[in-house]
This record gives sequence, structure tokens and C-alpha cells, in this order.
Amino acid sequence: MIDPAVLEELVAALPGRVSTTATDLAQYSRDQGPVLRETLPVAVVRARSVEDVQILLQWATRHDVPVVSRGAGSGVSGGAHATTGCVVLSLELMDRIVEISPDDEIAVVEPGVVNADLNAAVAQHGLMYAPDPASYRWSTIGGNVATNAGGLRCAKYGVTRDSVLALDVVLADGTLVSTGHRTFKGVAGYDLTALMTGSEGTLGVIVGITVRLRYLPQAVHTLAAFFDDFPQAAAGVLAIGRARVQPSILELLDGRTLEALDGAHGSDLRRRGGSLLLVQTDGYGAGAEADAIRGALIGLGAVISEEGSEEAERLIDLRRHSRGDEVDDLYRVGEDVAVPKSQLVPYVAALEDMARRHGVKLKVVAHAGDGNLHPTFWVERSEGPQAQERLESALDESVQRALDLGGTITGEHGVGQYKRRWLAWEQSPEVLDLQARLKQVFDPSNILNPGKAIVS
Amino acid sequence: MIDPAVLEELVAALPGRVSTTATDLAQYSRDQGPVLRETLPVAVVRARSVEDVQILLQWATRHDVPVVSRGAGSGVSGGAHATTGCVVLSLELMDRIVEISPDDEIAVVEPGVVNADLNAAVAQHGLMYAPDPASYRWSTIGGNVATNAGGLRCAKYGVTRDSVLALDVVLADGTLVSTGHRTFKGVAGYDLTALMTGSEGTLGVIVGITVRLRYLPQAVHTLAAFFDDFPQAAAGVLAIGRARVQPSILELLDGRTLEALDGAHGSDLRRRGGSLLLVQTDGYGAGAEADAIRGALIGLGAVISEEGSEEAERLIDLRRHSRGDEVDDLYRVGEDVAVPKSQLVPYVAALEDMARRHGVKLKVVAHAGDGNLHPTFWVERSEGPQAQERLESALDESVQRALDLGGTITGEHGVGQYKRRWLAWEQSPEVLDLQARLKQVFDPSNILNPGKAIVS
Repeated sequence: MIDPAVLEELVAALPGRVSTTATDLAQYSRDQGPVLRETLPVAVVRARSVEDVQILLQWATRHDVPVVSRGAGSGVSGGAHATTGCVVLSLELMDRIVEISPDDEIAVVEPGVVNADLNAAVAQHGLMYAPDPASYRWSTIGGNVATNAGGLRCAKYGVTRDSVLALDVVLADGTLVSTGHRTFKGVAGYDLTALMTGSEGTLGVIVGITVRLRYLPQAVHTLAAFFDDFPQAAAGVLAIGRARVQPSILELLDGRTLEALDGAHGSDLRRRGGSLLLVQTDGYGAGAEADAIRGALIGLGAVISEEGSEEAERLIDLRRHSRGDEVDDLYRVGEDVAVPKSQLVPYVAALEDMARRHGVKLKVVAHAGDGNLHPTFWVERSEGPQAQERLESALDESVQRALDLGGTITGEHGVGQYKRRWLAWEQSPEVLDLQARLKQVFDPSNILNPGKAIVS
Repeated sequence: MIDPAVLEELVAALPGRVSTTATDLAQYSRDQGPVLRETLPVAVVRARSVEDVQILLQWATRHDVPVVSRGAGSGVSGGAHATTGCVVLSLELMDRIVEISPDDEIAVVEPGVVNADLNAAVAQHGLMYAPDPASYRWSTIGGNVATNAGGLRCAKYGVTRDSVLALDVVLADGTLVSTGHRTFKGVAGYDLTALMTGSEGTLGVIVGITVRLRYLPQAVHTLAAFFDDFPQAAAGVLAIGRARVQPSILELLDGRTLEALDGAHGSDLRRRGGSLLLVQTDGYGAGAEADAIRGALIGLGAVISEEGSEEAERLIDLRRHSRGDEVDDLYRVGEDVAVPKSQLVPYVAALEDMARRHGVKLKVVAHAGDGNLHPTFWVERSEGPQAQERLESALDESVQRALDLGGTITGEHGVGQYKRRWLAWEQSPEVLDLQARLKQVFDPSNILNPGKAIVS
């Protein structure tokens, strides 16, 4: 436990910012990822300014106290889980949109700005912030940057890294540095902005973000294509690619996901098909692209929704929410592997085989446009620890298979705490060592989110 | 000078790869950037394999010999200039396209593959490699990655970093590591791929590159809009932005650039206008986007080329070549600053004022879609050292002004050797120090392209 005098020093240095109530400690102890070992922080700091963050980190360095920073806690890999003896730094109150420059097509935000709020603010200028993780209604830009969040529109617009131009970062010792530039292009020195993006709070605390905005599309077309089964729908993904049409959204849902959506929302999706491909095109070519996609899917047996139907839009919205109600735990784990696009069908066939062999349930959704799959494996809690072991075996096998096919253990959720056990399966000892040494450069005392993101 | 026995050891270890002929030493002593001090390498190694590179670097580490790696030597910042006592490592013979996967939409190449050759090879699959530096006909993918090269199409498709998925890198001690993934998305560990991209050979030698390919556009429309003067043309850039239409190419050429093109190619561009805006749209919406752009430019006094005219295409090609014939020296320096888009007009007005005050000549082209300007300042060689000093003063002032407007010293060419004197104007001592310490992690003996890219 922390020395009460040390904590008192923090309270005195940051009046009104520090909480040690049981409610706060519990609430800020975790994100949406599976919890391996329940751990409470020693305090929660709700920063209101860059100076608050600097004061906290100077204190943490002085007393060697770990700091776990977080935005909304919407992550699903345990990257914001409390670790032993840590202070949780919440940036949710630093939620000012500092600047929107419609002509420069950039915005400057504090880390606690909610993704959807930024999008609402820039929409009146005909602009959008493209990265759209499913949690966009409540996740923060700071958290999105810390995890290099993906989303539905990445297929066309790229991931968070591709929209981040500059960062203000408080280093472990409290020093404030600025990386990057306000311009779209810039190659002065090493790309520290990209290095910070996705580093999950282990290299510094992001306190300011300059993002590139994109143009709100002039038109949007959405298609819902129902197929008999998953392999046929996945063949549709390849057919769209072979037609060389770039959708903005290309989501693949399997039959069990349709069942789950029906159960939660009273829809009748599963009755209409064994697998659903949701496609959105946008921009001046949206109509022609939708036509080309329809053409590519003809002959594959798809039943495609009427052009302009509201249902397709509603389905995109359902898809965005398809994880929302399910907090992962040790009996239900949503994966985040990615494989090269051509491997979607063999990979999902392998997943189904694994689920059968290990006696676990499986449903799969995929950001099919970039090969990023979210298989969810689960067992009944009532089955106890043995079922949990079967689940773990299935998870391990699914991750190894993705790697065998040229994939990655995490497409967009981050390694956090939960996926660290797989990192060495993907990366060589030399690469793991390089990362550990980079971490040392930024955080020699290892106080920034220790035990996350990398293996050190 | 190098100990002959040490050099003999290298020749023996890499039979047939090492040259010390005067012709080779001279030819490989520099790239296209201004030469501050003529320096010859002690040897040139033309590697044919990853093993060759590893053997060279093991030898270099053993004997503490600097290694300057290069592709085609098309860089314009002196990043590949020889430094005292160095071996130049040419990767131009490692030019195999290892793999093209049309369904995965990726290619794997050796570093010496010429950008245009990769594009030709993937075009038959309906694909393209998007980054297109003006040197694309002869620059190599390895060099493009080392400098995080930009180009004309970045406005829509991003810079080199946005197309690089994975790298094979030989570290200073000869260790081979792989970073990144074959998938479009992936967030396992720190983004070492982005860190290597643009590091100009100072962190490792890139020996293998996996790139993401994009779809060859279904249609391309090109407009050439002549304006009376530069401010009007720059107003056109903002008008296109405000119409929220994303061109794939948006190039701005001033009157003196038109004069220079006329002189070199016998055209009559300058007679037709004082400034030229070249716009290309592509994809399914290309026609509608071109119409929208035409609409945005109406009323701004532009004379716009006929739809579908061959001339507009020819002008894009001329623009791509507009630097080709001019190797920079100490009497002619092409800059590479970028400013936020809204600052294009005030910045160019400031440049013209500087040119007048310092008594130097000026012409300006800009990748206007992302605010990246290439002003070229020059004086007559016959005017001697005093003119050179005036040139230097104008350059310094132009860089400082770009920074004052929120810009960067280099949008796409890299810091190399020539721009190091400005790096500390853009980046704080803390950021410079972080970079030096990152360099130490990768290259503790400082043998990889020392004296380039960062200030250490």
C-alpha cells in the first residue's frame, strides 16, 4: 500500500482532483476488457489541465508510483485496468475542443473529447473525423489515439494514426513535449507521433491532439446483402475487392451474430440469411460504386436490400452496437485478430472447427474490408473452471492460426493487459527487446502503465 | 583513411560486391541534394542479398565504419551523401518484386525496386502503389520508405508511411528483424514500421518492404486552370477545399515555374496565365468531382481547359518532371516547407517579398492539396560567394516564416544533411534529445548514416 503521507502530498498538490472513495476506486479500476486479477488503484486523479498531469507525473516519478491513464475506459484489452499500487489518471474532464480550422481541415482537441462530439462539432463545417470505433458515441479521442483505434470506416479512411498530425505529450518525468505538425505532411525527424499512437499510455500521457479532418461525403449508399452462409458472404468480400471498388464500410456478420442481434433488438435477420454483408460507399461516386458492388455480388446468391432502404442504415447502426452490451469476462472473450483478406474463408472455417473441438460457442463479425475479425468465444458461466480452460484453449488456437495465415494478434484493440501472452507469438525476441528499450528511453522508472502493451 | 587490411577483410567477405574505383566512389558520393563539403566514400558495396547487408554491417560494427545506405540516390536533402570514412551501401541490385498478392492487395519487394516498375507490375491486376514522388520513374521503394516520400497523389492517398505495412530491417549489428504485418491493420506493440519509415537510414537498413496497394481508379479527370496570378490560384485551392471535394492531385505552379517549363519544353504556358492550378480527380466519382471543382472555380477568373483534353494530362507529366533537370547546388536550392492550407497566400507573398529584399530569384510549385511548397531560390553562379550568402539568408528566412505560420521545415524530402541546421528551429531540445536517445537504442555506435536526419 501507498504511504499515506505520500498520498497526502498528491492531494495537497492537486486540490479537488484526487479521489479515494470506494466507488471511484472500483469504477476506475478497469476498462471493458477481461479482468485477469481484480485490482483497485490507490487513488483516482481527474485532471483538468496539462499542468495537473505534469504535477501528477512529477509526483509519481518522485515516489515511484505507477500511473494508468484512461479516457472513457471503453477499451477491451485491459489497457486501462488498474495495476498494483497505481494511480488511475482520468482525462475525461479535459474535454475541450480547442480549435476547429475549417480551411486547414484540422481540429485541436483535449484528450477527453468524445469521438462523436468532435464529429458533431465539425459536421457543421462539412467535415468529419474519420476513425469511428464502434464505441464512438462514448470513447474519447485520447483513448482512440492511445490504442490507435480502428473502426468501420478504416477500409477507406485509414486508422487513427492516419488522422493524427500532432500530439502534446507529458513524459514520465512531467516534461511536456510536442510532436508532429499542423500540416498534413511533415518528415522532420523521427515519427514520434506515430510511435506514441497506439502505445497505450506506456510512453507518455497524451494531453493534446491535432487531427486531420476529412470531407463529409456528398452521398452515402448502403447495401445489405444476405447470403446462405459465411463462406459465400466472404466470397462476396473478395468479389468486391476483385472489382476494385473501395467501400467505406464492409462488414461481415455470421449467422450467430445475426441471432444475437435478433435476440437483443427483436429483428428477424437470421431468418433472412445465414450471413450478412453490410456495404457502404460514400462520396461523389457512391451510387456508381454501389452499382458496381451489386454487379460483383450478382451470381453469388446474395439477396440484396432495396437501394436507399432505411433498413440498411439501421443495420449499420446495429452493427456498431453489436459489442456494446457485452462486457468481456473470463467466460466470454471477443478476439481482434486480422488476417490477409484472401484468408477470411479458411480462417473462419478453422474457427468453426476449433469451436466444435473445444466445445465452446462462437460468433464472428469482421471488418472484412481489412481482414480484421472479431470472433467471440464463450462458454456458460455455470460450466465452471473446466469450461474456462476449454475457452482459453480455443482462444490460443485461434490466435495461433491467425498468425499462421500471416495475420496479427490484434488488428485494432491493442495488446493491453489481456493479449500480452500472445505478443511473443507474433514478434521475435529481438523486436520485443527493441520495444522494451524504447520504453526505457521514455519511461526509465517504468511508471507509465506498467505491464501493458509490450513484453518487457 | 581506412586501414587497408580492414577493407581487404570486407572485400574477402563480400566477393564481387565491393568497389573502390574512382568512378564508383565519385558516382556514389552524393545524391541530388546540395553538397556542403565534397566527400568520397572509402568503398561502395552493391548488396545482392540480405546476407550481404548483414555481413557488411557486422564488419562495420566490428571496425566502427560508418555506412550510408542508398537506393537510386534521387533524394534532394543530402541524406545519401557520403560522410567521412564511410562505406556507401547501394541497394539498387536488390530489385526483385518478391510477391504480388492481388486478393490481399499487397506486394512484397526488395528495396531496390523502382517505384514505376512496381506500379507497372501491379497495374495488370488493377492495382497501384499510391505514393508517387516526382522521381517515381527512377527512385526506389527503399529510398521512398527511408525518406517517407510524398508525391502528387498524397492529397488523397497519403504518404509512403500510409502504404507501408511491414519491413525487414538489418540493424546496426547485422541482426535481421521484421516489423509490422501483412494485414492492413495491426496494433501489436509499438509502431516500429512507422518509426523506421522516414528515418533516412539512421536506425537500420531496410531490406524488405510489404506495401498495401490501392485500386487503379476506374476513371481519371484532369483540369488545368490558368489564373492571372498566384493569389487567385491559391484562392482556388481554398475554394476547392470549401466545396469539400477531394482531388487526387492538386498542384499549384507560379508564373516563373511556367516560364521555366516553357524554356525547357517549348510550351507557351506563361502567355496563358500568371499561375496554373492542375487538378486531377479519380475513381467512380471523378467526373462529378471535376464538375464540382469547375463550379467552385467559376467566378474566380480562371480559364479552365476543355474537359478530357490531352493537354491537361501532359501538364501533369510536365509538373512531375519540373525538378528533374535541376540538381541543387549551393547557388540553387529547392525548399520543401509545408504550411497549413489557409496560409498558402500569405506565405507565398512573404516569399516574394524575401526574394526582392535579398536579391535572389524565386519560383514556386506546391502540392497545394496538402500545403507542401517547393520554392526554389537561386542566384547566378557568376555573382560569387556574396550572392550565395544572400541566398542563404533568403532560405533561412523562408524556413522561419513557414514555422511561424504553423508549418514544417520539410514536408516530404527529409532532413538529410542539408536541412539539419533548421531542425532545432522546429523541434524543442527535449524532442531532439528523445530522438538522439532513440537512435542510440538502434545504433549505439552511431555507424548508420551519422550526421543525418536528426541532431545528435
